Amino acid sequence: MASYDYDLFVIGGGSGGVRAARLAAGLGKKVAIAEEYRFGGTCVIRGCVPKKLFVYASQFSEHFEDAAGFGWSVGETSFDWPTLIANKDREVDRLEGLYRKGLETAGATIIESRAEFVGPHEIRISASGETVTAEHVLIAVGGRPNPHAALPGHELCISSNEAFHLESLPKAIAIAGGGYIAVEFANIFHGLGVETTLVYRGQEILSRFDQDMRRGLHTAMENKGIKILCHQVFHKIEKTADGRLRAELSDGDELVVDQVMLALGRDPNTETLGLDKAGVETDHKGAIPVDAYSRTNVEHIYAVGDVTDRVALTPVAIHEAMCFVDTVYKDRPTAPDHQLIATAVFSQPEIGTVGMSEDEAAAKYEALEIYRAEFRPMKNTLSGRQEKMIMKIVVNGLDRTVLGVHILGADAGEMAQVIAIALKAGCSKDDFDRTMAVHPTAAEELVTMYQPSYRVKNGERV
Amino acid sequence: MASYDYDLFVIGGGSGGVRAARLAAGLGKKVAIAEEYRFGGTCVIRGCVPKKLFVYASQFSEHFEDAAGFGWSVGETSFDWPTLIANKDREVDRLEGLYRKGLETAGATIIESRAEFVGPHEIRISASGETVTAEHVLIAVGGRPNPHAALPGHELCISSNEAFHLESLPKAIAIAGGGYIAVEFANIFHGLGVETTLVYRGQEILSRFDQDMRRGLHTAMENKGIKILCHQVFHKIEKTADGRLRAELSDGDELVVDQVMLALGRDPNTETLGLDKAGVETDHKGAIPVDAYSRTNVEHIYAVGDVTDRVALTPVAIHEAMCFVDTVYKDRPTAPDHQLIATAVFSQPEIGTVGMSEDEAAAKYEALEIYRAEFRPMKNTLSGRQEKMIMKIVVNGLDRTVLGVHILGADAGEMAQVIAIALKAGCSKDDFDRTMAVHPTAAEELVTMYQPSYRVKNGERV
Repeated sequence: MASYDYDLFVIGGGSGGVRAARLAAGLGKKVAIAEEYRFGGTCVIRGCVPKKLFVYASQFSEHFEDAAGFGWSVGETSFDWPTLIANKDREVDRLEGLYRKGLETAGATIIESRAEFVGPHEIRISASGETVTAEHVLIAVGGRPNPHAALPGHELCISSNEAFHLESLPKAIAIAGGGYIAVEFANIFHGLGVETTLVYRGQEILSRFDQDMRRGLHTAMENKGIKILCHQVFHKIEKTADGRLRAELSDGDELVVDQVMLALGRDPNTETLGLDKAGVETDHKGAIPVDAYSRTNVEHIYAVGDVTDRVALTPVAIHEAMCFVDTVYKDRPTAPDHQLIATAVFSQPEIGTVGMSEDEAAAKYEALEIYRAEFRPMKNTLSGRQEKMIMKIVVNGLDRTVLGVHILGADAGEMAQVIAIALKAGCSKDDFDRTMAVHPTAAEELVTMYQPSYRVKNGERV
Repeated sequence: MASYDYDLFVIGGGSGGVRAARLAAGLGKKVAIAEEYRFGGTCVIRGCVPKKLFVYASQFSEHFEDAAGFGWSVGETSFDWPTLIANKDREVDRLEGLYRKGLETAGATIIESRAEFVGPHEIRISASGETVTAEHVLIAVGGRPNPHAALPGHELCISSNEAFHLESLPKAIAIAGGGYIAVEFANIFHGLGVETTLVYRGQEILSRFDQDMRRGLHTAMENKGIKILCHQVFHKIEKTADGRLRAELSDGDELVVDQVMLALGRDPNTETLGLDKAGVETDHKGAIPVDAYSRTNVEHIYAVGDVTDRVALTPVAIHEAMCFVDTVYKDRPTAPDHQLIATAVFSQPEIGTVGMSEDEAAAKYEALEIYRAEFRPMKNTLSGRQEKMIMKIVVNGLDRTVLGVHILGADAGEMAQVIAIALKAGCSKDDFDRTMAVHPTAAEELVTMYQPSYRVKNGERV
């Protein structure tokens, strides 16, 4: 057996890479992990974590509004963006520290540098110019926002990366995209007082989500005052004389705003990784195809997380990393399980969802029962807020298995997390029915919809 | 067969009575329902619903405090109690209207009067003096706060009933009791700016809940500034010269406050119901014992809800009412299922719980695995709030069945509702483990505790 500098070299210090490095090092393996920017990856540094902190920040304006109906008078409120940024940065720093500390404690070697393949087992550390060797390599380099280079003026636009570090809060913003990043940021900026327009080329925001969620959120966002333009794209972005941005739309209209944010998907970070030197193949998008065990086409090289373009979510990357360690270092080949992954959109109202949408289930199953409730949550009665909560359960009409649950409203993400346990265990609607309600909660609606709202037979609502 | 005025006479227009009357009338039965006060019962009129509205109101003070860490400056805030009461009353009126409307639509006869047995099938309507007959009678009269008549000065005190209608908000309140009503009101009054002391004779608040929940909530409440005196009772309450109340404690100390609230359990409303005329037996507490199908000792007389002293919760009363209708009118004898009822305490932080506490499980099972997490929820990082969230999973060590889940923190009630589905379906810890996390949520902790925090063998922590 050849002798290598490391048992495992991990490229990329995000959620997946750090977990794999930490676990493998904890097993006594000699592990190095290289990160060119900051440990924690997209999730901690410029994704989930700061995003959720922004969401909390943006919710206070509604808290202030809601208070009146409950007897509170609130004096003049104001929002200071630099304070939020500074406090967010401090928390991100703290978390990055925890990631580093976890690696150090486990005994992994931390390399603060870009790392690129120069051979199948050979990796060059840019910062030192040194080349090291490793028996196994794990590619966990993640992705980055698609810059939409075809758009004239795209260089004037920001992505979510920059949104976390804007020097000042824009007065008006236009956001391109209809995915969860675009939608979440539209709600964040709106909640912080920014005049917000969402521009999406598709028919309805959040494609692949259940239609009730898509329409319900669209309506709620518009009712708040967020402008949503579907069937539209930006044709051109240019600076105005007074330093603002003019965004020309496909229908000829234009928007004049202070920032344009592009949230048009994400690209894998593979271009200059030297994958060709290692013989690792990529697909047409630049993502790295892997087998069921996260192995690339090269036997000793694995890849996990966003770079593999499977399911780009933090917990999935972590799960893939844990499976990788089981497979390679615990003699227990474990394929990541990508079935029934619950997700949340931290829009306002929030979406929590697990399993199949009605349309997806209708295409696959002969008979469905759809249970659907739309109601004003209790808090909104006194606040006067008109926003409705929507809950929907998609059930296989033949065997009563619950195929999907979709929730729009406060705490939907928390509920979806928990409901995923029941779906993963294959629970039936009868299991829901025999569960006693907890009153007064919103979630009790999920266990008290005894009669289907309607049925679907062979794809047709009946 | 004798001919009766009604197929069913329901005494009591609360959650259980209304549901039974509505369903039976909907089946074409001739139904009357008598209520002496207001339709909706304890839950709608002076329980769950107005309580939760008060909880929402009391949470705003923390929202205002939390805002600063997220960049918000909030001007001076003030709270007006009469506004809250008026808005709460309007909502309660609306809900009462819905209850009445449901009964009317179903075709039940609404009798706004007290009703008492004068014979096994004979019921006297106090308002009209008239006596009517019914083939079946359902007793659903609920309960009321125990007035603690043995306490000198108890007549100076309020119960939860009065708390919903106080003319002004006290500056200081003392609350006797350690159950959920006492605890919830302590948090409500504190959140609205009232100097609050909780006086409880036991060792720790919320007996029968999991110890981690009890201690955790106790600590959180004290950290907020709520004074909790355990091992103490009131000896005497008297008026002071300036119209306040002096409460003498068992240790000789005294509190001077504006209101004393007694939350020392609830009594069934059975004294003057004429039960002796119908031959219906009661127990030593005045509650009506029933069989598995909610039938009293008299064949045609049933009882549901709080008056039966089984599980005094709205959804349970409703469930018992539905089972009663199935049993008596649908030829489908159905015993209410009282196993694995999730509950919430709408304290601040909230408790959500389902299944056995660690102590309860330790007494029953040979081996347990305890999974426990205590962490600062993400929102508290920027707000600076020190409050921790606690999550605990009690697992049978032999077969990995999840026996209990206990959550202290925001949205715990919503989570408990959903987790009850999994427990009711008999899910195992493995089902939890194979569920993918939703990030960032608090609930993801429930599916990512892979290793037990400790084990319990034959009742001893090992």
